[in-house]
Amino acid sequence: MTALTEENDVGREMYALVEELYPICRSITGNGLRETLGIIGRRVPLEIREVPTGKAVLDWTVPREWNIQDAFIKNARGERVVDFRASNLHVVNYSIPVHERMSLEKLRPHLYSLPDRPNWIPYRTSYYEDAWGFCLTDEQLDSLPQGEYEVCIDSTLATGSLTYGEHVLPGETDDEILISTHVCHPSLCDDNLSGVAVSVSLARELARQKDRRYTMRFLYAPGTIGAITWLAENRERAKKIRHGLTLTCLGDSHPFTYKRTVGGDTAIDRAATHVLATSGVPSQIIDFFPYGYDERQYNSPGFRIAVGSLMRGRHGEFPEYHTSGDDLAFVSAARLAESFGILRDIVDVLQNDRTFENTSPFGEPQLGRRGLYRALGGTSIPGLQFAMLWVLNLSDGEHSLLDIARRAKLSFGAIRTAADLLVQHGLLVLRGP
Amino acid sequence: MTALTEENDVGREMYALVEELYPICRSITGNGLRETLGIIGRRVPLEIREVPTGKAVLDWTVPREWNIQDAFIKNARGERVVDFRASNLHVVNYSIPVHERMSLEKLRPHLYSLPDRPNWIPYRTSYYEDAWGFCLTDEQLDSLPQGEYEVCIDSTLATGSLTYGEHVLPGETDDEILISTHVCHPSLCDDNLSGVAVSVSLARELARQKDRRYTMRFLYAPGTIGAITWLAENRERAKKIRHGLTLTCLGDSHPFTYKRTVGGDTAIDRAATHVLATSGVPSQIIDFFPYGYDERQYNSPGFRIAVGSLMRGRHGEFPEYHTSGDDLAFVSAARLAESFGILRDIVDVLQNDRTFENTSPFGEPQLGRRGLYRALGGTSIPGLQFAMLWVLNLSDGEHSLLDIARRAKLSFGAIRTAADLLVQHGLLVLRGP
Amino acid sequence: MTALTEENDVGREMYALVEELYPICRSITGNGLRETLGIIGRRVPLEIREVPTGKAVLDWTVPREWNIQDAFIKNARGERVVDFRASNLHVVNYSIPVHERMSLEKLRPHLYSLPDRPNWIPYRTSYYEDAWGFCLTDEQLDSLPQGEYEVCIDSTLATGSLTYGEHVLPGETDDEILISTHVCHPSLCDDNLSGVAVSVSLARELARQKDRRYTMRFLYAPGTIGAITWLAENRERAKKIRHGLTLTCLGDSHPFTYKRTVGGDTAIDRAATHVLATSGVPSQIIDFFPYGYDERQYNSPGFRIAVGSLMRGRHGEFPEYHTSGDDLAFVSAARLAESFGILRDIVDVLQNDRTFENTSPFGEPQLGRRGLYRALGGTSIPGLQFAMLWVLNLSDGEHSLLDIARRAKLSFGAIRTAADLLVQHGLLVLRGP
Repeated sequence: MTALTEENDVGREMYALVEELYPICRSITGNGLRETLGIIGRRVPLEIREVPTGKAVLDWTVPREWNIQDAFIKNARGERVVDFRASNLHVVNYSIPVHERMSLEKLRPHLYSLPDRPNWIPYRTSYYEDAWGFCLTDEQLDSLPQGEYEVCIDSTLATGSLTYGEHVLPGETDDEILISTHVCHPSLCDDNLSGVAVSVSLARELARQKDRRYTMRFLYAPGTIGAITWLAENRERAKKIRHGLTLTCLGDSHPFTYKRTVGGDTAIDRAATHVLATSGVPSQIIDFFPYGYDERQYNSPGFRIAVGSLMRGRHGEFPEYHTSGDDLAFVSAARLAESFGILRDIVDVLQNDRTFENTSPFGEPQLGRRGLYRALGGTSIPGLQFAMLWVLNLSDGEHSLLDIARRAKLSFGAIRTAADLLVQHGLLVLRGP
Repeated sequence: MTALTEENDVGREMYALVEELYPICRSITGNGLRETLGIIGRRVPLEIREVPTGKAVLDWTVPREWNIQDAFIKNARGERVVDFRASNLHVVNYSIPVHERMSLEKLRPHLYSLPDRPNWIPYRTSYYEDAWGFCLTDEQLDSLPQGEYEVCIDSTLATGSLTYGEHVLPGETDDEILISTHVCHPSLCDDNLSGVAVSVSLARELARQKDRRYTMRFLYAPGTIGAITWLAENRERAKKIRHGLTLTCLGDSHPFTYKRTVGGDTAIDRAATHVLATSGVPSQIIDFFPYGYDERQYNSPGFRIAVGSLMRGRHGEFPEYHTSGDDLAFVSAARLAESFGILRDIVDVLQNDRTFENTSPFGEPQLGRRGLYRALGGTSIPGLQFAMLWVLNLSDGEHSLLDIARRAKLSFGAIRTAADLLVQHGLLVLRGP
Repeated sequence: MTALTEENDVGREMYALVEELYPICRSITGNGLRETLGIIGRRVPLEIREVPTGKAVLDWTVPREWNIQDAFIKNARGERVVDFRASNLHVVNYSIPVHERMSLEKLRPHLYSLPDRPNWIPYRTSYYEDAWGFCLTDEQLDSLPQGEYEVCIDSTLATGSLTYGEHVLPGETDDEILISTHVCHPSLCDDNLSGVAVSVSLARELARQKDRRYTMRFLYAPGTIGAITWLAENRERAKKIRHGLTLTCLGDSHPFTYKRTVGGDTAIDRAATHVLATSGVPSQIIDFFPYGYDERQYNSPGFRIAVGSLMRGRHGEFPEYHTSGDDLAFVSAARLAESFGILRDIVDVLQNDRTFENTSPFGEPQLGRRGLYRALGGTSIPGLQFAMLWVLNLSDGEHSLLDIARRAKLSFGAIRTAADLLVQHGLLVLRGP
C-alpha cells in the first residue's frame, strides 16, 4: 500500500466521521454532546466524565444541562417557516424554552440573520444569560410577513452534568502531550468536526506505534467551560503536560496557521514552525493572543501550559465561520489528510527530539571507510551525507535533533535518519532525554 | 469644552510664547537668557541659578558672560547695510567687540552667508574662541561694493554668570523624570522656542494633576555648557533621574523622530516608541548617536542617564535649520499642539506604568457574570474586552502595563482603562511600583 | 610610492606566485606538494613537517604517498589522445598505477568529462578508494573511435609521508591567529593558488610590522587530511588559536563571501563582517555549514576553534570550479590585490581591537580647548570628530574599538585613529587587552 493510498484512506476515514457527526445538535452540555462522544468512542476508547451542574470549576460553575427536542416558528397558516428539524443552527444554542404566539414585531428582536450572506444561517449562543432566539437566513427573514406567529423552543435547562471524554496512550514517562479539541458546536463541519476527526485519526495511528516517549492525551470537551472543567478536575495532572495543541478548522482549503503559545518559543512552537517550514505547504505563524479557542485557558498565567493552536481557516476570519456555510462541502478528505500529516509530523518531532553526542568529536570522522560517504571527490554531496555532517557537528550536547534540523534548514525526518545511521555506526550516543 | 478645543487652546498658548520670546537675542549667558527665563517664569514658577564665570564644571569652565547692545556694518555713505537691530542673527553669537573701519577685502573673512539659500541669514557661534563676525544673506553679501566700511559690534565679554532655570513638580517618590530644553538660541523658532513652549505647557498641565508618581523636573538651560553646568552642580540629584527627554524642533511640520538613549531599550525608549507607534501620526525611531543636543551629556558614560530626544525636524537635516528661515512662519500652533499631545502621552506612560497581578490566574475569570463581557456569543469582541483579556493573561508579575500594551499592540490608554476596570472588580491587584 | 602602486606591486607579486605554482601536479601527499612548499618557502620561511604513512591522526590515518611520472591514453596508432603532460587534471588524482590495452568499452567507465562544458577538463580525486581514471574534455571523449587503446598511469602509491608547512610570526602573547590554506589541488588557480598567494603576501607584509599582539600562524597543508593531521599533531597548540580564517578562491571576480564560524558571532565573525560592510566592495555573509574547506575540521565539536572562511567565488557554485576553466586567465592581480587588502584589514582589526576607558566620563570633555574640535559652531562636524565622540561615549569599559566601530557604522580605521588621538591627549587609557 503506498503512502498516498494510506493518506487517502485516512482522509476518507476522517471525512466519514465528520459526516456521521454533522447532523447532531451539540452544545456545551447535553445529550448531543454525549452522543458525539459515543460515536468517537467507537473509534478510540474514551473515558467519559460527567461533572454535575453547580460544581465550582476554577472561577466558573458548571451550568445547567441543556437539551432540546424541537423548535419552530409557525406562520398564521400553521406552516413551519423556521424549523429546527431542517437545521439545528436555527435555534440560538442554550435557548430557554418558549412557546407562545406573538407578533412579528415582538418576535423580531429574537431573530438573527446575516444581511451580507443572505443564504446562510448564523450560529449564535447564549450560554450564560437566559435568553432565546432563532437564527435564519436573511432571505427567510425578509420573507416573513407581518402577522402573528407561533414560536416554540422545546428545550430544557435543568440540573444535570457537563460531559467530556479522554483517550490516553501511555508513554515511557508520564509527561504528556495534550491534543485538545472542542466538541460543542452543532452542525458546523470545519469548526470543529474537522479537529475532532484529525485528533481521532492521530490517536488511532499512534495506538499502532511502539516506544512512545511521552504519554499522549486526547481531550474532547466543550469549548471554554470544558477546558476549564478539565483543568479544575485535573490540577495535578495538568502539571505533567509538557506540550499541547488545540485543533480547529482543519478541513478547509486555507493555508495552515500555527498560533504560538504565550511563551512564544517553547518546544511545541519550535516543532510546529519547523514542520510547517519544511513541509512545502503554505503556512503562516502568528503570535499568541488571548482569544480564540481553549489555548486561552491552558496558557492562562496560573497554568502557563505550552499549548499552541493548529488550524487552517482562522477563528472569525473566513466568511463561512460560525454559519451554515461551514457544511460538508466546505471540508474535504484531501485537506483533512493534509492536516493529519502535518499534525502527525509535529507530534513525531516532539516524541523523538532527543540530544545525542558525537563520539568522535575531534575533526570529522572518516565517513568513507564506514561506507557513509561517496568515494569519488566531486563538487557536492547527497542530502543524507550533508545531514550526517550537520548532526556530527552540532551533537555537542547542547543541540537536540530539532535544533540541528532548524539550523540546517533540513526536515526533522532527514536529520533523524542521519542520526539513526550514525548511532548504528557508533559515531553518536544518546546523551539526554 | 471638547478635547479638540482644549488642544487648540494649548496650541495657541504655545505659539503665543514662541512669539513673545522670538525677538530676544539669547546666548549661552547674558541678559537675553535672563529675560527669556523671566518670561517663562511668568507661566511656571522657576528657580533661577546663576553660576559664576570661571567656575569649573566637569571638564569645562563657565565662560565669561556675553552681552550685546548693537552691531552694524555701515557703508561709505554711513548707511547700515547689515544691522543687528533688524535681526540678531546678523552677529556671530559671542563675538568679541570690534569698532573700526576696514576695506571689504579685510572684512570679507568675517562674513558668513548661505550661497544655496540666498535669502536666509545663517546662525553662527564662536563661544570658546575669541572671534567676531557677521552673518548676512548671500544677496546682501553680493551687493556690497568694494570700498571702506565701518564695522561695529558693541558687545561685552566679562566676568558674570551662566543662568539656568528649573521648575519642579514633586511626586510620590523623589525619583525624577527630566524634561530638558536648551534655551540659548536667539531668533530661531523651531530650534528651540518650540521645545521651550511645549515643555512649559506640559508643566502647566501636570501641575493641575494629582497623584504623580515621579517628580517632574523641567530644566531650561543653555545647550551643552548649560547641561554640563547643571550636571556639575547636581551630581547627587542626577542619580535620581530615571527617565528623561530633550525637546527640540517640535513646531515644524516634519514627522516625529524619537532618538533613543544610548542604552537603546530603556523605559523611556519603550514608552516613546510605543506612544508614537500607536498614535497614528507618522514617526520614525533612530538610534542614539553622540551628537545633537544635551542628550549627549546626560548619556555620557559617567552619568548614563536614560535621556532620549523627541523632535520633529532633525538636527541639521532640514534647510531652515540654524538659519533665519526658522522663523514664526516655520512653526504653527497646530503642530505644537500635536507635539504636546505626544509628549503628554509619553510622560503619562512613564508615570502610570505599573505591574499588576491577576487574582484569578487559573483559566480566564468569568467576565460575563461580572458584566464585563458581551452576553451573546458571536465572532468577535470589542476592543476593551480584548484589552482585559490581555491584561489578565500577562499580569503574571513579570509584565507591566506597558509591556502588555506593546505585546497586544494596543494603546497604553486602552490597556490602562482595562486594568482599572479589572482592579475595580477585584480581578487585579497592584504588585509592584 | 603611492598606496595604489603598492597594491599593484602586491597584486603582481601574488599573480607571479600563482603562475609559478600553476604547472605543478599537487596532491594530498607527494613530491608535487613538497615542491610547492619549497617555492612558498623561498618567499616566507617555512617549517616543513613530514608525517609518516599509517600514522593515526584523529579518526583518520595518514595515507600512502602518491607520486606520478606520466600518464596517457594512446590510440591504435600509438598517438597520445589523452596526455598527462598537457594537463595534470587528465588523471584522476591518487589513481593507482595501470598499464594495459583495452577496448573503449572497457575503458569508458574510467573516463570523466563535463557534457555541459565540452571544452573543460574536470578535476576528480579518489584518495580513499583504490581506483584509476582519466578526466578529459567532452569533445575529446566524443572523438574517441571504437577500438583498442593503450592506457598507462605511471604512478606509485607507497609508504611515505604527508607534508605540510608552517610560518609563524610571534606576537606579544602566544594566543594565535591562524591563516589556513589548502595546498593540495593541482593545476587550478583560484582554488587554491589564489588563497596561497594571498596568505604568503600577508605573511610578508606582517613580517615588516612591529608590535604584533597575537602570534600569526600561516598553515599550508593539504585539504581535510592536512588539517586533520595538523590538529592531531598540535592538540595543545590548537587551544591557543583565538581566531582563524581559511582562504579560498580569492583571485576571481565574484563579490566577496564571508562564511561564519559555527559560533556565528565570534570576534573573527564580527571583524570580517565589519570590514566587508565598511570596505565599499560588494560582499555577502553566509552562515556556517559543515561542508566546504578546512573550517569544517577547525569548527568540529571537539575543537570549536573560531575559524571563518574568506572567499570570492563560492565552493561548488561557479562553473569553473574544479575544472580546467579555473586557469591563469580566471584570476587576476587586481582581484588578488583587493582580496589581500580585505584580509589585511580583518587581521588588523583582530590585532588592534582593544578596550579603552574614557578618563573624563562625566559629560563630554571639552575637545575645543585641546584643539580637537572645530571652533565655529555650525551644523555638522567632520568625521574624525564624530568618531572621537563615539569613542568617548562608548569607552565605558564594556565596548572594544570594534564594538564602537560597529555601533557607529564607521570604519575600524577611523575609530582607531580617533582613539589614538584621544590617548595622546590623555582622554583615553587602555583598559584591557
